[in-house]
Amino acid sequence: MIGLLEEIAEAVHLAVRDREGEDLSAEMGMGADGTPTQKIDRIAEEAILETLNEHGNPLNVLSEEADFIDNGAEQTLVIDPIDGTYNALAGIPFYSVSLAVGKEVMSDIEFGLIRDLANGTVYHSEKGRGAYKDGSPIKVKEYDPDKSVFLLYLGSNANPKAFELAAMARRARNYGAASLELAMVASGVADLYMVDAEPMIRLVDLAAGALILREAGGEIYNTDGDVLEMRFGPRERSNFIAVGDKKLLDEVI
Amino acid sequence: MIGLLEEIAEAVHLAVRDREGEDLSAEMGMGADGTPTQKIDRIAEEAILETLNEHGNPLNVLSEEADFIDNGAEQTLVIDPIDGTYNALAGIPFYSVSLAVGKEVMSDIEFGLIRDLANGTVYHSEKGRGAYKDGSPIKVKEYDPDKSVFLLYLGSNANPKAFELAAMARRARNYGAASLELAMVASGVADLYMVDAEPMIRLVDLAAGALILREAGGEIYNTDGDVLEMRFGPRERSNFIAVGDKKLLDEVI
Repeated sequence: MIGLLEEIAEAVHLAVRDREGEDLSAEMGMGADGTPTQKIDRIAEEAILETLNEHGNPLNVLSEEADFIDNGAEQTLVIDPIDGTYNALAGIPFYSVSLAVGKEVMSDIEFGLIRDLANGTVYHSEKGRGAYKDGSPIKVKEYDPDKSVFLLYLGSNANPKAFELAAMARRARNYGAASLELAMVASGVADLYMVDAEPMIRLVDLAAGALILREAGGEIYNTDGDVLEMRFGPRERSNFIAVGDKKLLDEVI
Repeated sequence: MIGLLEEIAEAVHLAVRDREGEDLSAEMGMGADGTPTQKIDRIAEEAILETLNEHGNPLNVLSEEADFIDNGAEQTLVIDPIDGTYNALAGIPFYSVSLAVGKEVMSDIEFGLIRDLANGTVYHSEKGRGAYKDGSPIKVKEYDPDKSVFLLYLGSNANPKAFELAAMARRARNYGAASLELAMVASGVADLYMVDAEPMIRLVDLAAGALILREAGGEIYNTDGDVLEMRFGPRERSNFIAVGDKKLLDEVI
């Protein structure tokens, strides 16, 4: 299954790369989740669906754009064709494709793959088998307040709590692509990643990263401090706090 | 002169790339500015000095690591061999080499070049001749509060003012490499970039970016709202607010 996800990610990479130089920011209508779909999202999604079709559509598809495609399969591919669309269109080299395979809820996801489309780095995980960055095992880091790196969604829509955390961290950063920021916590680059804002973040942005983070030794919680669970659905959204070192949760909640 | 700077940046790129996979985080002692020098900084600086030497040392050199090298030249090359060392060592694809040529102060800088070492993008400027990204002209964007992007240094060392701005922006981001973040304002990707923190930021981080931003139509101010001026010196530091649209300064100061 990871091989199929790699192939799909490669197809997205090629599709987006082939359109470089074009204006990919035209809005193409509204996605199933109410977010405007831009041309780059559409191109990426088409590449995913085509690749899946070449393989006989072995998975259903849940997407922000196309809603739910029932291929009569047991498992569903949860996709964010372009995570970090704003970055991609602005020329900020930080955006990805995020792919997860599960049945009905976040906790039954069995496979996850995130490909950084700006530099090619691939994170992947199979449930129970650890997490990997470009094929090498990754794990979360132990929290050290003097060297803390917190990834925080900030801005006018953010909960004041986010600014408190930004004042607590040695380094407070925000890169603007949720799946890659979860991967940064999973790989021990950051201690924490929180989005507590309106609108909340979508399931499709979190599905692959949540598995990868958990397999690397971290955990993702809702803002009440319970382990995050989400049902598969194009409109599913939640706030969350992802940490590498679980003892950090008590300090921030 | 821009050709020489391009050649120097290429030498840094090759030197760093050739050492990929090694642990480049060993501390190599203290730089002239009191910041620990890491192996990657040393490797990059050596590549710069070698390239300059091959050309007969036509410039003096001001560096965070080596302090001031007097080659008896009229002009001085102000270098930050690796801007974003933390990112480079953590595997975050956002770090650069920053090169500027001037005499004594920021305002007499005539040439600036910044190369993104993660993806190869080059920003350059010659005073009076505009600013360029990979050879194409760039300019700042007009401020629109509904689409605002503020780059803000946050964390435990930041002035509370920074958190106020983070709550005001539609998007608040921090990528952790000053020269590239100045280039993001210059190229219209962001409206503002502010560092108001202790310790303040170094001249060597700002020299090239300040010229590029000014040539793209923006301005860099100190936190009193005066146009920023800095003397060349390895220990020179300042806080600053860089904006694309000058009318934004009144709203944030």
